[in-house]
Amino acid sequence: MCGIAGAFGVSNAAYTVSLMLKALQHRGQESAGIVAADRQNGFRQVRGFGLADEVFLNVDWDRDLPGGSAIGHVRYSTVSERHNRRCIQPFHCQERHGNLAIAHNGNLTNYDRLRESLTEKGATFLSRSDSGVFLHLLAQSRRNRTWERIGEAINRTKGASALLVMDDSGLYAAVDPFGFRPLFYACWGGGYLFASETSAFDIFPAESVRPVEPGTVVYAGHMIVPLLFRQFAKSDIRRQCSFCHVYFSRPDSMVFGQPSYAVRERLGQALAARHPVEVDLVVPVPDSSNVMALAYAQALGLPFAFALMRSHYMGRTFITPRQEARELGVRMKLNVVRAAVAGKRVAIIDDSIVRGTTSRKIAALLRAAGAREIHFRSASPPVISPCHWGIDTPERDQLFAAMTPEPDRAAALSVDSLGYLTVSDLLNSLEDSAGSQHCVSCFTGRHPTAGLPRPASLLPDLVPEG
Amino acid sequence: MCGIAGAFGVSNAAYTVSLMLKALQHRGQESAGIVAADRQNGFRQVRGFGLADEVFLNVDWDRDLPGGSAIGHVRYSTVSERHNRRCIQPFHCQERHGNLAIAHNGNLTNYDRLRESLTEKGATFLSRSDSGVFLHLLAQSRRNRTWERIGEAINRTKGASALLVMDDSGLYAAVDPFGFRPLFYACWGGGYLFASETSAFDIFPAESVRPVEPGTVVYAGHMIVPLLFRQFAKSDIRRQCSFCHVYFSRPDSMVFGQPSYAVRERLGQALAARHPVEVDLVVPVPDSSNVMALAYAQALGLPFAFALMRSHYMGRTFITPRQEARELGVRMKLNVVRAAVAGKRVAIIDDSIVRGTTSRKIAALLRAAGAREIHFRSASPPVISPCHWGIDTPERDQLFAAMTPEPDRAAALSVDSLGYLTVSDLLNSLEDSAGSQHCVSCFTGRHPTAGLPRPASLLPDLVPEG
Amino acid sequence: MCGIAGAFGVSNAAYTVSLMLKALQHRGQESAGIVAADRQNGFRQVRGFGLADEVFLNVDWDRDLPGGSAIGHVRYSTVSERHNRRCIQPFHCQERHGNLAIAHNGNLTNYDRLRESLTEKGATFLSRSDSGVFLHLLAQSRRNRTWERIGEAINRTKGASALLVMDDSGLYAAVDPFGFRPLFYACWGGGYLFASETSAFDIFPAESVRPVEPGTVVYAGHMIVPLLFRQFAKSDIRRQCSFCHVYFSRPDSMVFGQPSYAVRERLGQALAARHPVEVDLVVPVPDSSNVMALAYAQALGLPFAFALMRSHYMGRTFITPRQEARELGVRMKLNVVRAAVAGKRVAIIDDSIVRGTTSRKIAALLRAAGAREIHFRSASPPVISPCHWGIDTPERDQLFAAMTPEPDRAAALSVDSLGYLTVSDLLNSLEDSAGSQHCVSCFTGRHPTAGLPRPASLLPDLVPEG
Amino acid sequence: MCGIAGAFGVSNAAYTVSLMLKALQHRGQESAGIVAADRQNGFRQVRGFGLADEVFLNVDWDRDLPGGSAIGHVRYSTVSERHNRRCIQPFHCQERHGNLAIAHNGNLTNYDRLRESLTEKGATFLSRSDSGVFLHLLAQSRRNRTWERIGEAINRTKGASALLVMDDSGLYAAVDPFGFRPLFYACWGGGYLFASETSAFDIFPAESVRPVEPGTVVYAGHMIVPLLFRQFAKSDIRRQCSFCHVYFSRPDSMVFGQPSYAVRERLGQALAARHPVEVDLVVPVPDSSNVMALAYAQALGLPFAFALMRSHYMGRTFITPRQEARELGVRMKLNVVRAAVAGKRVAIIDDSIVRGTTSRKIAALLRAAGAREIHFRSASPPVISPCHWGIDTPERDQLFAAMTPEPDRAAALSVDSLGYLTVSDLLNSLEDSAGSQHCVSCFTGRHPTAGLPRPASLLPDLVPEG
Repeated sequence: MCGIAGAFGVSNAAYTVSLMLKALQHRGQESAGIVAADRQNGFRQVRGFGLADEVFLNVDWDRDLPGGSAIGHVRYSTVSERHNRRCIQPFHCQERHGNLAIAHNGNLTNYDRLRESLTEKGATFLSRSDSGVFLHLLAQSRRNRTWERIGEAINRTKGASALLVMDDSGLYAAVDPFGFRPLFYACWGGGYLFASETSAFDIFPAESVRPVEPGTVVYAGHMIVPLLFRQFAKSDIRRQCSFCHVYFSRPDSMVFGQPSYAVRERLGQALAARHPVEVDLVVPVPDSSNVMALAYAQALGLPFAFALMRSHYMGRTFITPRQEARELGVRMKLNVVRAAVAGKRVAIIDDSIVRGTTSRKIAALLRAAGAREIHFRSASPPVISPCHWGIDTPERDQLFAAMTPEPDRAAALSVDSLGYLTVSDLLNSLEDSAGSQHCVSCFTGRHPTAGLPRPASLLPDLVPEG
Repeated sequence: MCGIAGAFGVSNAAYTVSLMLKALQHRGQESAGIVAADRQNGFRQVRGFGLADEVFLNVDWDRDLPGGSAIGHVRYSTVSERHNRRCIQPFHCQERHGNLAIAHNGNLTNYDRLRESLTEKGATFLSRSDSGVFLHLLAQSRRNRTWERIGEAINRTKGASALLVMDDSGLYAAVDPFGFRPLFYACWGGGYLFASETSAFDIFPAESVRPVEPGTVVYAGHMIVPLLFRQFAKSDIRRQCSFCHVYFSRPDSMVFGQPSYAVRERLGQALAARHPVEVDLVVPVPDSSNVMALAYAQALGLPFAFALMRSHYMGRTFITPRQEARELGVRMKLNVVRAAVAGKRVAIIDDSIVRGTTSRKIAALLRAAGAREIHFRSASPPVISPCHWGIDTPERDQLFAAMTPEPDRAAALSVDSLGYLTVSDLLNSLEDSAGSQHCVSCFTGRHPTAGLPRPASLLPDLVPEG
Repeated sequence: MCGIAGAFGVSNAAYTVSLMLKALQHRGQESAGIVAADRQNGFRQVRGFGLADEVFLNVDWDRDLPGGSAIGHVRYSTVSERHNRRCIQPFHCQERHGNLAIAHNGNLTNYDRLRESLTEKGATFLSRSDSGVFLHLLAQSRRNRTWERIGEAINRTKGASALLVMDDSGLYAAVDPFGFRPLFYACWGGGYLFASETSAFDIFPAESVRPVEPGTVVYAGHMIVPLLFRQFAKSDIRRQCSFCHVYFSRPDSMVFGQPSYAVRERLGQALAARHPVEVDLVVPVPDSSNVMALAYAQALGLPFAFALMRSHYMGRTFITPRQEARELGVRMKLNVVRAAVAGKRVAIIDDSIVRGTTSRKIAALLRAAGAREIHFRSASPPVISPCHWGIDTPERDQLFAAMTPEPDRAAALSVDSLGYLTVSDLLNSLEDSAGSQHCVSCFTGRHPTAGLPRPASLLPDLVPEG
Repeated sequence: MCGIAGAFGVSNAAYTVSLMLKALQHRGQESAGIVAADRQNGFRQVRGFGLADEVFLNVDWDRDLPGGSAIGHVRYSTVSERHNRRCIQPFHCQERHGNLAIAHNGNLTNYDRLRESLTEKGATFLSRSDSGVFLHLLAQSRRNRTWERIGEAINRTKGASALLVMDDSGLYAAVDPFGFRPLFYACWGGGYLFASETSAFDIFPAESVRPVEPGTVVYAGHMIVPLLFRQFAKSDIRRQCSFCHVYFSRPDSMVFGQPSYAVRERLGQALAARHPVEVDLVVPVPDSSNVMALAYAQALGLPFAFALMRSHYMGRTFITPRQEARELGVRMKLNVVRAAVAGKRVAIIDDSIVRGTTSRKIAALLRAAGAREIHFRSASPPVISPCHWGIDTPERDQLFAAMTPEPDRAAALSVDSLGYLTVSDLLNSLEDSAGSQHCVSCFTGRHPTAGLPRPASLLPDLVPEG
């Protein structure tokens, strides 16, 4: 997961983008970057490792990143090239048509083949980032209009892509035809804003918030009025990430057109219906499962309590290098309010169980604090498969539900009972009972586009050269 | 407010202290520091501006801060000398008896007179920090035992002090006779830990947690077994800070011997009794009023919802320099879940109302999101006076309740009703109905020790020199 | 001017290169970089602004730049993109054949045309550096052997190039057919070293020092034994930079096969023959004219004295931002030993006069220190033209000799007499009386290759694809 | 050795001091600092490790160090507390009379006793720097006028001291009664400048340059006109450091009233008289022995050549951590011009021989370059004793001449002959044949003040308190 944001036609575009990146910070804490475009000064960039606050701490916006157009990116940790500065997005280069910058949230499954074909024609790569492929697909394209180059590039890739592109004429937003990753636009300050989540718009607040439709490029340009929309591919099936609802997004965001808060309430209610329990206390694993746990408690008429406390100063941490630190890990982040749970029967609600490590430690913390019974509830189905489209989930052999047979799971976590949602519960909560709109591949193990036809290209024919 | 922590007789004392400082980070984000004492390497220090994570990021614990004894400090922002590195605690010097280091949480009301008397005898000050006065009181003392020097120094000061001192023989913890600021000790790893809040101990977890009694020095030394306790002053009256319960402390900490979580529940319940209201939704201002709001809702049988979201990536921020940023301030930190409040009658619960600025903006945010009625409740009495003992509250003319007559307050916040606790409600919730144990000066305007006798010194007579 | 260095087949190649870059530091102080190649870890790089000492200060060689092969670069200040990190060499990318890194010392006169042709085929540029063109010429080449790609690339460019290239199979050194810039190789530590000047080898000391012949690639590879030599272009005419002898190179280096010290002695002797003078003292402008001045004094039997002192702590300086600083400029760098010159007739010897600014200030300093007569001598001809091949000399209208008619020059510098070498003197001192080996274009204004045939390509025919 | 500089009554005093510190950089490269005094902003400081250029790189002079008065310090490496930031001068504190800052060049032989007596009265030390003692001697003094406090402090110390002090009323310069270390003042810009060497004044250039007389305070104050001079102690004997002439000072400085250049010429001439030799070439060890070597060559009518080259980019170096680097040490700094010495008989002239390590390596380098004979000459007597007064010379057992009997010395260096000056030669060259003005203790081993009476105090009587 990553977060992307853009601004076009507003004064101090880069500064505006920086505020949106802060609002999207939960989507990626490893690096941050902005490229700004100014008519006089050309394209300028500031990129670095760390939170947006840290990377942009000493930026003099008017001097370092001037201009009315900018795109930005916050990146989630990726193990492979963690310390390679050249992986930090947005990417910027000069190519046939002039300046080109891209910020990409996504993952390509045909990366190797595309890269080979691009280098065959002379492309020079600076990293193994998927997003570099897009830069070269655009640079090598024989088409002249950038929106067509973007469409062509997405059509040549397989996988998930939400994309912001900036060239000397304007700013482009595009989403792949299956719509795996969210991307929105809105009006503000006489121009347009773009972001991965709508909560990034709320700080201004921007108006007329709308999603970028899958298979479409939205274009804000110097020479055109309002926005231009161009569809480059068509698919009736969507594969919007259901895990974004469950975990990644902020509860105050719209996700793929649905308010995340309402979805999470329905997940909690479905969990209450599927796995009710008689306890003295319902406790959320803060903060991502707060809404689900509250809905669960209210549906069952059970007392609710903040008996687990999360410390919010644990961003990047110096504790990794020492063995004792790893042991303390969970305890540094989560602490039990002993007075609240001692002698009580407790239902603990989490959004999901991935590796099971944290769940097991939470159970142990509660037990040590005197909880009499511990009932664990997951507001999503068992995670049994890594993500095919690149979300940074662990390999199958590290997934708790994949490696632990159903009957052994409660014992493996040392809890008195354990309950998950079913895939149907999840899809119903997403109001997609047919399952044609969402990807649930990590819960089913089925490839997200297996058996589906490749989306039809709607691009105009390429005009022959000369 | 500041946070202090210490460790004695444990391996990797400095590292242990760094973990406690992280757990105390909510008490101060401006600077952090640790002084470690090692028999072979003497006293070493690392200090800097920023969060503990940032200051200690590149510390090689064994090389830079070796030893079995260490004290640390996290400092709250103080306007006067914000950029003076020499204000960063702990302070360390060499004096008559050898090495001396101190970490001080408190505020002296007779600072000027003490400083003058100290410089008269040749003291050289590096900053205007109150804590520097302690260093020189200890250094100029004619007494030879450090615990006596500490007691004498506290007896000469007026104001609030929780203190950790380290010399070549051991580590000392002391609290002034009125006990204004909390300080605890516990057993762990074959040695002793010290910290401003008990939640700092939970990460290990440490055992036998006990408060340092007012007017007492607790001493952990190389040449003695277990701990030594020495009382240097006696007062029947306590002036423990009631605002620590309301706002500063983590809900999972013990505060002055009472679990903070339970106190906050009682505050919420008292608020429900004092100012009930008929609404569709009770909403906390996260995170400090979560427990109070939940207790309020449950006492009245009202629905509870997380309709305000707080962003946790807003620590130190680059947004200050620009005017538009200041406007966006609250909105960057708090966002309303529109879906949850639209068309509803809302009770919003906050722990306190100080300047009123945030309260007013929250009301406006809720109104803009479609709330039909807004009822504001403060889980503490009106704040009508700055703190006499140095907590960083604003001057009287910036205090909302001091400057706004009671009948105008709801209108001033643009809310439909407004309700506070009374001072009696607060004291009852603290189980101190006589008011002899707590300072409520910011709610009453009365000087905390006005009319009280100066605590009696219990120090042994000073042996004449020669 | 820049400095390049490489090492192949030696342990700690990157560290070895760093030592050579330090020895070449006089050729460029703005930025420094190293790319190292390791079989296991692939290609790694460290690059930054500043002296080699500063850029590599915290490098952990075994961890950050492991491997037995490395190339490095120190860059002279170039105005256009001074603050663009992406201009810092060596450049590294992944292309059709795998990893590719280049360090380039030179300047292309057909840059614009080449860049256009490359972007036409999809090349993406990160900066306007000439050296980026080489990277893309190699990446887009249809040839498969790297030495052929290098030869083809140089043959397509016009201008000066000394080049180090590293790919997954080895390290290549190449020089353009006119041989404008120096490049040497030598044997050491079981492998090979490459550097712009031979003094970089003296620190080891390396053996069998030889120049890379113009139009030739020298190849050190994993799969071959000793070195491979391949000629890709042929020219009987050389255009070795005569200004390198006069100014750029260290006196302890070999330059284009001649010891610099001996050349400078001949220049001083020629100057004595051309413009003798009767004075009390011969004074060098330190340090570059020391050898010439001493030879001048000894040839004429005149006393020699170090009456001008140069401060060696003036590398990168904080004095630029203030007006008064610019005034102090020369005086911060040069100081007159008053006692040595008071009342004396002084001959001051400099290697060259470019802008005339420093010469004028030196004359004023000497006059102020009481010199009775000042006779200025330049150990090179009048500089009347900017460099066609990219050495960072000023434009024509800033060149003293170009803008000041011969009869007015002494007066313009406020000296009693002024004497230059002739172009013939210079060529004779270089033992190239025919002028077929050296470029003297900055002294004559004639284009260095005007009227010369383009060198003949000796590359094997390109094998057709498929 | 250290360098100190001050400015009073000039605009941008701190910036002016920074330029002087750059000119004094040869006296200390480990750390640099400036304290500036401004009527409105009080005392401000910037201090750090590294060259002046590095420490002050990002200083905004008007914002960070405003005011018309400033003092600064560059520090030589001292092993004991190399990484203690708190050793970096100038020191600043607030004491009885207000602000106090000092920059000290010197060394106290009764440090321990003074420190004990100061801590006994409550002084708190931040480091083991000698200069801290001065701060506390001033702070604890019962006298009220700062010049008297300074005089009293110097009279209480034993050892060498050149001192700049700044308080709220002005700037004071003082030198101990034996005058071991140089200190000068001059007029410039409507105010006064102070510096360890006169070459620091030449950059402006300042006028009326005069030494601060031993036993005297020179005072520039806000309330007085021009300068005030106060003598606090009297001694007929001086102990000016003879090694400053030989090695430390810049040749363009006045040293204790004599031009360094002229002294070094006399040393070279004396060496020619004492140890003439028949050789083909006289070669200096650059840069400190250039003047001596040239005088030697001219006195004997021998050819002179720059056959050893020194690299000037070797300031602080990253080469220390690796063994191979230490081996390369000398070779990174010095390189032989092979062409100049091959087959020749060479006299190599150095200013002194301390450890002998470099001398031995130079001889080996010359031999390897083909020198036929090597005759080593030292322009000072054998160094047989460490400095009693604190110059950072090695212990006796590391001194070449102390550990090697006279007859074995040439063989120990592998040279064909070796010649030193005598102590009489040295004193005659200093025009102090009686030896009453200079310290030659490192050449004789006799304590510099042994048998001398303690200088008489000339301070006014202390007015009794009350």
